[in-house]
Amino acid sequence: MYIWFNGKLMDRQSASLSLQDRGVLYGDGLFETFRVEKGTPMLEDAHLNRLRQGACLLRFAQVPEPEELKRGIRELLRANRVRSGYLRITLTRGIGGFGQPLHRLTDISVWMEAREHPLDLSRYEQGVQAVVTSIRRNPYSPLTRVKSLNYLESVLARDEAAEAGVEEGIFRTVDGDVSETASANLFLVQDGCVVTPDVSRGLLPGIVRSWVLDTCTQRGWAWETRAVSVEELMKADEAFLTNSTWGPFPLVAVDGRSIGSGKPGPVTREWISRWRKVAAGDSAE
Amino acid sequence: MYIWFNGKLMDRQSASLSLQDRGVLYGDGLFETFRVEKGTPMLEDAHLNRLRQGACLLRFAQVPEPEELKRGIRELLRANRVRSGYLRITLTRGIGGFGQPLHRLTDISVWMEAREHPLDLSRYEQGVQAVVTSIRRNPYSPLTRVKSLNYLESVLARDEAAEAGVEEGIFRTVDGDVSETASANLFLVQDGCVVTPDVSRGLLPGIVRSWVLDTCTQRGWAWETRAVSVEELMKADEAFLTNSTWGPFPLVAVDGRSIGSGKPGPVTREWISRWRKVAAGDSAE
Repeated sequence: MYIWFNGKLMDRQSASLSLQDRGVLYGDGLFETFRVEKGTPMLEDAHLNRLRQGACLLRFAQVPEPEELKRGIRELLRANRVRSGYLRITLTRGIGGFGQPLHRLTDISVWMEAREHPLDLSRYEQGVQAVVTSIRRNPYSPLTRVKSLNYLESVLARDEAAEAGVEEGIFRTVDGDVSETASANLFLVQDGCVVTPDVSRGLLPGIVRSWVLDTCTQRGWAWETRAVSVEELMKADEAFLTNSTWGPFPLVAVDGRSIGSGKPGPVTREWISRWRKVAAGDSAE
Repeated sequence: MYIWFNGKLMDRQSASLSLQDRGVLYGDGLFETFRVEKGTPMLEDAHLNRLRQGACLLRFAQVPEPEELKRGIRELLRANRVRSGYLRITLTRGIGGFGQPLHRLTDISVWMEAREHPLDLSRYEQGVQAVVTSIRRNPYSPLTRVKSLNYLESVLARDEAAEAGVEEGIFRTVDGDVSETASANLFLVQDGCVVTPDVSRGLLPGIVRSWVLDTCTQRGWAWETRAVSVEELMKADEAFLTNSTWGPFPLVAVDGRSIGSGKPGPVTREWISRWRKVAAGDSAE
């Protein structure tokens, strides 16, 4: 297994990070996870664009060029023979003490991992269950809009879910409405209209979330982004989650109560099938 | 220079962290920074206790024994010949993917660094200036109560301060009141009474903050913990900050406006002198 580290392929075992790296000291960095299908990273430009925007929001003095990253992605996928799996890029602010002005920290660290990991398609048939966790997202923090290495809220939310015997943990905002889950954006379907919390709800603006909303706009389908209450979610006709690993997938129950029929709904199934076509490289979608 | 890593002293250059460590992947860990004076870590038990409490709040399956850490602290301070400096302990959840239940992750990583770094005492005479930053703390997140590796809010606040040409950045809470600064707790003095935001304001309950409040209680001096507005801070007779590196130190201006006389006030000076006595090992304090 290889890793791509600061521009070079190296053996995964021999790659490690200095204990002085700010990624280790303060979680001072960000990452992107890509789904890989047919040996190709899905929605590559959108991910690289978000990485750049995140680095900008976190005041990085330096960002690797997208073309360099794209070359690295291809090299690594080939070296590790990944056809259906994932790839993660991590970027940290490199070595430097806490008090240093960020614009001087130009020696960033960037690395990528990739491995084969075909999807378990039964998830699309069965859907997942979630609980509303105790953790409240802060819409007033810039960090909720960045896929940063400050990922502990998701770690804890996921563990609250595991304790409750389900897979996903839902965050509310400090105001009490629905934000997102530990690893996905959340959609509900009401009378055929697709609804998702707006970006001011302390959520990461997901790549697949944008793909869903853009697709709706292009086709003239009804969609809304706004505040969503937990009650409203419970009463939705159907609900689904989206993230880069799975695309859209059904959310069938929350806090032990079924959403709609308790099975993947028809609108959700259509989104899954649209996504599977994109994954299969059907450019018409 | 040595480092203490998972129970062993090793050369600092040869110590590094696996890229699979959750400390790197998600900032999944916590740390403590001790001031060392006369070769001895100050308020050692209080720091080790907070580390344990933090690990508990973050659902760590394993925490190193305080006695083991104390032995390590002594070994490391001796090896690096630290008389007046600092020591940092970092704890991460070790290797393991995102979805894993946290109670199974028992193979934690723990390491310590220490170096000589005498204090620049002129800071106590001149005080520091601060700005109110754009970042709002979330009192509803468990993370604000833990010194975790999710430290990006402090990184960004400190940089906002640097851009404004001052040293410290003040956080407000999502409700708009004063929380703490990027690296310290904040106190103000009103008619001789010491006031500091209460722990429900999304702040880290600092070790020196507790020392100040405990000392007040023991001596029968007036103190209060409650909501503090920015306006109230501006109108205070004097203000000071506390952290483990500096103990108490004067805050003399906020957003370019002087607090009180714009110089370290008499109550602040008394706290500094009390702290310097503790640092000098005067056990009467």
